[in-house]
Amino acid sequence: MNEFEFIKHIRARAEERGAFSGLVRGIGDDAAVFNALAGSDVVVSTDLLVEDVDFRLANTRADLLGHKALAVSLSDIAAMGARPRWALLSLGVPEAVWNSGFLDNFYDGFFKLAARYGVTLIGGDVSRAPDKVVIDSILIGETPKAGAVFRSGARPGDHIFVTGFLGDAAAGLRLIERGAQLQQPSQEAKTDEARRLDYLLLRHLQPEPRVGWGLLLGEQQLATAMIDISDGLSSDLNHLCAESKVGALIDAACIPIDPLVTEITGRRALDPLMLALHGGEDFELLFTVASENVGLLPRRVDGVSVCRIGEITSEPGRVRVTEKDRTWNLEGGGFDHFNLKT
Amino acid sequence: MNEFEFIKHIRARAEERGAFSGLVRGIGDDAAVFNALAGSDVVVSTDLLVEDVDFRLANTRADLLGHKALAVSLSDIAAMGARPRWALLSLGVPEAVWNSGFLDNFYDGFFKLAARYGVTLIGGDVSRAPDKVVIDSILIGETPKAGAVFRSGARPGDHIFVTGFLGDAAAGLRLIERGAQLQQPSQEAKTDEARRLDYLLLRHLQPEPRVGWGLLLGEQQLATAMIDISDGLSSDLNHLCAESKVGALIDAACIPIDPLVTEITGRRALDPLMLALHGGEDFELLFTVASENVGLLPRRVDGVSVCRIGEITSEPGRVRVTEKDRTWNLEGGGFDHFNLKT
Repeated sequence: MNEFEFIKHIRARAEERGAFSGLVRGIGDDAAVFNALAGSDVVVSTDLLVEDVDFRLANTRADLLGHKALAVSLSDIAAMGARPRWALLSLGVPEAVWNSGFLDNFYDGFFKLAARYGVTLIGGDVSRAPDKVVIDSILIGETPKAGAVFRSGARPGDHIFVTGFLGDAAAGLRLIERGAQLQQPSQEAKTDEARRLDYLLLRHLQPEPRVGWGLLLGEQQLATAMIDISDGLSSDLNHLCAESKVGALIDAACIPIDPLVTEITGRRALDPLMLALHGGEDFELLFTVASENVGLLPRRVDGVSVCRIGEITSEPGRVRVTEKDRTWNLEGGGFDHFNLKT
Repeated sequence: MNEFEFIKHIRARAEERGAFSGLVRGIGDDAAVFNALAGSDVVVSTDLLVEDVDFRLANTRADLLGHKALAVSLSDIAAMGARPRWALLSLGVPEAVWNSGFLDNFYDGFFKLAARYGVTLIGGDVSRAPDKVVIDSILIGETPKAGAVFRSGARPGDHIFVTGFLGDAAAGLRLIERGAQLQQPSQEAKTDEARRLDYLLLRHLQPEPRVGWGLLLGEQQLATAMIDISDGLSSDLNHLCAESKVGALIDAACIPIDPLVTEITGRRALDPLMLALHGGEDFELLFTVASENVGLLPRRVDGVSVCRIGEITSEPGRVRVTEKDRTWNLEGGGFDHFNLKT
């Protein structure tokens, strides 16, 4: 298949689901065109995934990678309190990968997740790459005018919440680095242990963005500030505090850690609290809520609950953790592409 | 500089030019946010440039590459008849390049071109890359509602036009491949020959998108169909005809070839007509105009004139060229990343 045949093929797959309200022109022109809803704001994010930096082909599957490419962008749009609408994908692909079944499986994972959230693929680009796969995932969402939730709106006294559990993805990555592998989907007679291991590996390989929570917090204007946890709680809480010009005090005992992580990492000399604080790629949402609104938060959205982990303070940039009778500074220790600490 | 310091630095550069009408949130959050003008359509394109496929670091300069990354996207938006507004850049950068002055110079070229067309950088992503630079350029524009010009609107009898000259970029690339190099800007006493050679090399390395023409043709609804010539006239005219379900008849004698190309390639056993027909990356606009509107076209926009090169015919997919007393089929022979013919 050459480049033009490939684009035609993807276009057919993108159009399979019929016409979409607001779409003027999808794949197949110089650019895509959509209607902006009257009075809405447009929200746009881009996420670059590079082979052997952000993923290793030997450790994942093409469909999981297609899922993840969209998931990381869905997480960004959710963190703005916005509704995801339109996706574009730029792919750089080495010839050997091009000639394998990789791309079909990649798009399987992508389209499956896109369908779940009503996202339409409207454009992209494809280029040969010399040796590594590169993926740039672009996602466009919308909010009512002035409805987006920024990192900068947290105020002293606001309560700090996170969705789901923290540290799962980092635990999954550590297990992969130590040789753990996903069971094949066809292996029916999985042991309980294999199933639990798979669960953690998938938390890294196939993250679930918190689209429902993001939308709810945006629509009901319940969050004063929000960020997704992609670099790690320590880094991302520091980002949020820097943008809001506030500090934070976190209670270590309140950080939601999956019992499975505690159990599995405990046997492998990993500290679950460190994974939860510094581990990246959880793609949970970290958000702040004014104290008078805390009671308005639902218990669960899409089966995911939230935990209150601390409070915003008035000391700009001072982010601390209390753990038993100690209080210590939480420095950003998450993932930095050019200063790898983990 | 680490990743976060870098983003802060680019954010400061992007914000240097002050606040922009319609921008709600630029660099520094999970996603960028802008107002869509009431009643407007949003136009979005993405272009991936991969080192050693789309460019070689040894043959260009970082500032020219920054210019080109934006120029190719400006060309896409122009080909929709739209006004460019918002840019995002995803960069994958090997450590050695990261630690050089490359990125500062790259952004110099990018911002200089962006300023010329009122484009604001509102977001992006940066990742380490194992060995090659990758750049994904995302550009968002706008048109009045239903104002975008598609590839699909050409009708039999429409006249076919191109802006500028064709084949310059291909000639420049051939010269580079044969060892020609740009003179240093500091070399004052350039010979006339060196100046002419530089001109052609820059047509490849620093293309000028036809933003003014695109806007005019869109706003005045003069073009029935439009595409930018990125893959080569032969490929792109075939794309336009396929989408419009029409054919075309081109007069070889009318194809605008720069006398400089004729002269320089003539001495180097290259056929200027073949460069003009099949050479990619000219980033000129190819468009069709209903015969009753041809008289309404301005002679020049931003100093660039257009040439009528042929006519749309009613035979779907049949694209032909008349040259003296011969008529032959013009197959798409331009750049295909996975089927390199040039």
